[in-house]
Amino acid sequence: MPPPVTASLEMPAAGALRAFLDQLLGGGGGSAADALRPAHATAGGLGRVALVGAGPGDPELLTLRAARLIAAADALVVDHLVGDGILDLARPGAECLYVGKEAGHHTLPQEEINQLLVRLAREGKQVVRLKGGDPFIFGRGGEELEELLAAGVPFEVVPGITAACGAGAYAGIPLTHRDYAQSVVFATGHRRAGESALDWVALARPRQTAVIYMGVGMLASHCGALIAHGRGADTPAALVENGTRPGQRVVTGTLATLPERAAAAGIRPPALLIVGEVVALADKLAWFEGAAVHAQA
Amino acid sequence: MPPPVTASLEMPAAGALRAFLDQLLGGGGGSAADALRPAHATAGGLGRVALVGAGPGDPELLTLRAARLIAAADALVVDHLVGDGILDLARPGAECLYVGKEAGHHTLPQEEINQLLVRLAREGKQVVRLKGGDPFIFGRGGEELEELLAAGVPFEVVPGITAACGAGAYAGIPLTHRDYAQSVVFATGHRRAGESALDWVALARPRQTAVIYMGVGMLASHCGALIAHGRGADTPAALVENGTRPGQRVVTGTLATLPERAAAAGIRPPALLIVGEVVALADKLAWFEGAAVHAQA
Repeated sequence: MPPPVTASLEMPAAGALRAFLDQLLGGGGGSAADALRPAHATAGGLGRVALVGAGPGDPELLTLRAARLIAAADALVVDHLVGDGILDLARPGAECLYVGKEAGHHTLPQEEINQLLVRLAREGKQVVRLKGGDPFIFGRGGEELEELLAAGVPFEVVPGITAACGAGAYAGIPLTHRDYAQSVVFATGHRRAGESALDWVALARPRQTAVIYMGVGMLASHCGALIAHGRGADTPAALVENGTRPGQRVVTGTLATLPERAAAAGIRPPALLIVGEVVALADKLAWFEGAAVHAQA
Repeated sequence: MPPPVTASLEMPAAGALRAFLDQLLGGGGGSAADALRPAHATAGGLGRVALVGAGPGDPELLTLRAARLIAAADALVVDHLVGDGILDLARPGAECLYVGKEAGHHTLPQEEINQLLVRLAREGKQVVRLKGGDPFIFGRGGEELEELLAAGVPFEVVPGITAACGAGAYAGIPLTHRDYAQSVVFATGHRRAGESALDWVALARPRQTAVIYMGVGMLASHCGALIAHGRGADTPAALVENGTRPGQRVVTGTLATLPERAAAAGIRPPALLIVGEVVALADKLAWFEGAAVHAQA
């Protein structure tokens, strides 16, 4: 078991958050990173890995802690869904290693990513493993931590705004609402090879919002399966492309009409499918103007 | 429909995130707030409301956008679950109005909160409505926006790290994992008066992680209901008290054993119940040391 890393995790006391932020950026990137370095030092020259969520795309949705760790990192191991501009926070000279995964095209196999993280930490480096969204929501963060644990590498985890929360906020879709949805479920079509069945019984429950990550290629199939498992064909549904990014597009409709509308609009990944009565609120609560039209009925 | 507020929402171009952060805090709080003011101005002297998620407690889990809006606000309307230290970002002279809700004790009724937000905006103020976690996950954010919409007040929404993601990250519990959980569902016991039934059929599905917000008072009842609806009594379960805060405590067990263990540890709200096979990973992946013991078997 790795040694505890509480030294770098002290909470700012009440009244100290502004001072913390001043420290983060007050003296310019280099000196801020240097100032933070001692807090990260571990015994024996062993580095450590911070598993960090970069949020859904808009760089302003990065957390303060993520910004601080990125600015202090010696090496960053980065997935392809990390938003533009976020890596500008890295200090000059920091190694940036892209291991981006896209559907069907893994730049580096997961096992090699795991080994890379262990090797960098053993070189004494402060490593940031940066993932889009939240590292524990379809991010395989748990699998990477198990490898670090086996290798004795200390780690911490920084949650990020998951894509569903980002897309919901920027599309004007409250994922829960006392009148319409008492729960929200997140699912993904991506699984280990050969096991692709989603739990449609669970996803089709009433008075619930269902969010399916990466739903573009299978959109018609997914909408059909929800109807087949009891969700009404007139249930409101939306596809959000590039959620929170300047090019965000939102196509709304119903389980019956959304596939055709999304195809007509040429929606492409990354996109999220949101299903439930709350989606009907988007037509009035949408406030964020992306680059393209808000496609509606 | 309120006018679009895109003027204040321009994305930092690639390369500009550091400059954005320097602007946020480089000149001290007051001047940073002043510098941001013009971006928020709307026609006719009408103010606006930003519905902002403050995250799960650790002030470092605030987003950059939330920090910027808090620093620029004329008035802040604040719930009781907002983490200590976050309001230190507000500029001197900003109004801070606490309308905190605790179970059974609403400091201000929802309708009066809605009216307060409208009144402040009509006074021309830049208002931040600050909520714990994410405003669209059990935050009643949608209800408040509908009131603002009816009153013609412009608004935006800033997502926050929801309590489940914060507690999962800091307790070492990956909410999804390819081997154990292909989906995650969030639910709450809090509903409108008289409608308290959770959808146990949905929450008890296998190969899924279920997170129940505010589960302390009803813990034994909730664990029993999950077992009655088909979840094995030996399913791993955890109660996370004060997730991400210095006083975080994590009690792990099974659906059968957790209620007694949590009672023995004296767990109190705010706390989250997390149920599913991924909870078993906490015993090895836990890395954050709160103020108290990590209670295990």
